[in-house]
Amino acid sequence: MPVRTPDPDPEPDPEESTPGGEPFIPGSLEGFGTGAGSVNPGWLTDVELAQARRRLPILYVEAVPVRTDGVGVVTEVGLLRATPLGEMTRTIVSGRVRYGETVRDALFRHLENDLGPMAFPLLPLQPTPFTVAEYFPMPGLGAFHDDRQHAVSLAFVVPVTGTCDPRQDALEVTWLGPEEAASDAVAADMEGGRGTLLRMALASVGALR
Amino acid sequence: MPVRTPDPDPEPDPEESTPGGEPFIPGSLEGFGTGAGSVNPGWLTDVELAQARRRLPILYVEAVPVRTDGVGVVTEVGLLRATPLGEMTRTIVSGRVRYGETVRDALFRHLENDLGPMAFPLLPLQPTPFTVAEYFPMPGLGAFHDDRQHAVSLAFVVPVTGTCDPRQDALEVTWLGPEEAASDAVAADMEGGRGTLLRMALASVGALR
Amino acid sequence: MPVRTPDPDPEPDPEESTPGGEPFIPGSLEGFGTGAGSVNPGWLTDVELAQARRRLPILYVEAVPVRTDGVGVVTEVGLLRATPLGEMTRTIVSGRVRYGETVRDALFRHLENDLGPMAFPLLPLQPTPFTVAEYFPMPGLGAFHDDRQHAVSLAFVVPVTGTCDPRQDALEVTWLGPEEAASDAVAADMEGGRGTLLRMALASVGALR
Amino acid sequence: MPVRTPDPDPEPDPEESTPGGEPFIPGSLEGFGTGAGSVNPGWLTDVELAQARRRLPILYVEAVPVRTDGVGVVTEVGLLRATPLGEMTRTIVSGRVRYGETVRDALFRHLENDLGPMAFPLLPLQPTPFTVAEYFPMPGLGAFHDDRQHAVSLAFVVPVTGTCDPRQDALEVTWLGPEEAASDAVAADMEGGRGTLLRMALASVGALR
Repeated sequence: MPVRTPDPDPEPDPEESTPGGEPFIPGSLEGFGTGAGSVNPGWLTDVELAQARRRLPILYVEAVPVRTDGVGVVTEVGLLRATPLGEMTRTIVSGRVRYGETVRDALFRHLENDLGPMAFPLLPLQPTPFTVAEYFPMPGLGAFHDDRQHAVSLAFVVPVTGTCDPRQDALEVTWLGPEEAASDAVAADMEGGRGTLLRMALASVGALR
Repeated sequence: MPVRTPDPDPEPDPEESTPGGEPFIPGSLEGFGTGAGSVNPGWLTDVELAQARRRLPILYVEAVPVRTDGVGVVTEVGLLRATPLGEMTRTIVSGRVRYGETVRDALFRHLENDLGPMAFPLLPLQPTPFTVAEYFPMPGLGAFHDDRQHAVSLAFVVPVTGTCDPRQDALEVTWLGPEEAASDAVAADMEGGRGTLLRMALASVGALR
Repeated sequence: MPVRTPDPDPEPDPEESTPGGEPFIPGSLEGFGTGAGSVNPGWLTDVELAQARRRLPILYVEAVPVRTDGVGVVTEVGLLRATPLGEMTRTIVSGRVRYGETVRDALFRHLENDLGPMAFPLLPLQPTPFTVAEYFPMPGLGAFHDDRQHAVSLAFVVPVTGTCDPRQDALEVTWLGPEEAASDAVAADMEGGRGTLLRMALASVGALR
Repeated sequence: MPVRTPDPDPEPDPEESTPGGEPFIPGSLEGFGTGAGSVNPGWLTDVELAQARRRLPILYVEAVPVRTDGVGVVTEVGLLRATPLGEMTRTIVSGRVRYGETVRDALFRHLENDLGPMAFPLLPLQPTPFTVAEYFPMPGLGAFHDDRQHAVSLAFVVPVTGTCDPRQDALEVTWLGPEEAASDAVAADMEGGRGTLLRMALASVGALR
């Protein structure tokens, strides 16, 4: 069985690959809690993140980008197509919430990162997700799984206007009608149980048949 | 006690004042169910509407217009100020769902009617309201009351961009911060229990303290 | 195409068949609004209800009965099996909200009526439905249709304990696992688009795959 | 300013005080991912947990226990009264989600721990919380704060039957009507912004005025 991941980054995640570790959240918590010393507590080295992933549930946000008509009916669903290792997979916007970052800011950051700077996501008013997806490294605990970690994901449906032009070369956005998006064929291209998540997203906006 | 109404129209509602009754929904159901004859079944005369209001729960939609910042946080709430009979009251967007009309279309129609053609409401993706407000003509059955009828209202929070310029001379839109909107002073200016509805709206978007 | 109805009562609905019309809601509104006279305004004759159904959206409640395990996971879905005209159909609990009746009371009344007095439904805390299903008499306006009327239904998932023993001879309750309940075969047995409603219900409780 | 915490345990939390660290989740993930060695990856020492709390958002669940009437209307709210350091505070059920533990299981564990073994919580069907409360160690980032950590809490309203008899001597459960629970006086007794959380809980079930 292939490795299944909640955020199958085709390009290295700067959080994980940067030797110096994860950059601190700019702004609000800058320098928080650090007396002095050489280690900024907001940084997380690769080793530390890997350790945390085996010992704590890791908080994620996920977003299903959609297009709507004039009265808010979902007409299209945007799926990311990635080709890691030459194998095509589909996925949605997904990523970790950082220390000191709000859920909204994390959602915005990952949307911008995955859809490009010319996409304009309309973030939800409600802080409540349409569902909470729990990814476990072992099978049998539910619909979602992730070999790397126990991730708990707050999942949102997000209308997007503008042009989606992912920054990463290996990613592209394709738009499908709700019916095709809910199909078994699409679900088979998605990892970790995200076909189920996509159907739940469609149901939450009245677009599942 | 003054008459309390779910949609205190300062101007006559065309549905109620037009002698010929309520115009049929254009489009989808035009002429539906009528062979020919002189009576269009979609029309409802004033007398018939008045009778129905004493015998059936009447379906309403209500909307709390809001302004948001770049990541979806509610920064302002738009309340309608009306001066029927010289007495200032505040209210929200509110109106009946017509026969053959979708909830979304009714929501859009009333928003446009109350906020003017230069306001651009972003209708919710979800068909589910933040609450269902039940207005009864008799007190004691809950938080909401309406002398005229038993009305059941699907209530939504709707972000609005553009310029709000109500068509009706007696209406104006004022924008308040969430804290002021939730205050007792504002609640005292609202009829039928809508101060409670407003607080529930704010709570649903994480803007109630 | 057969007539499709939101509440395909195999037995006559007392509301529709009783010559004297619909009994008034006991209690809260008893005698409300009537000076004296012989006509209780809360009554609705068959003719009047038939007329209203062609001129106003009619408010319904619907409930998907479920069994859960100890931590609230849905394990089974209860579907009603009816055999009107000898043809087997499946449906869910469904019925009209009466004048002066709360949504909760209507929900409880229809659950008790369809599941019998030994079933113990645990009504939801939230007044918000998992979805609002809009049934139109004409096709093409959405997922739901009803030849008789424009019905707007507040739909809930309701855990039920105790024994389900419908009062009506032509009804029985069968319990299916979530996967079977979401299948195309079951959807084909349901009228008016209720297969879609059932899938949305399952998605709302995390039980759709 | 006093230390404000999302789970002000009057008794030491076994997770934090046990020298050997946090016990692994029994069952599903037992021994997962560990070849052999002496270190079970599911354990988290005090030092490690303290470090993680400065570098990652920590996932919590919170529950507002309620009593309901026969049709699901909230009649009373159960608040925990604790007397740490001799100062009376009120709080709700709150605690961390462990590695490998579902949100439901965490919710059940903390409810049982705080309300005692004779309380019977009816866990929600929906995996979605009524709100997501974000606690930050620094003020100014929202309604909720916690000196110790960045905690993200999935908050639920949970009907409870049976007898609430907390195991910890320093805790007791008091039941308040919805109106009193939403009062400023009660909010003043709650830490970290939980008075706001309580009002949002009440709003979500239609019990806030």
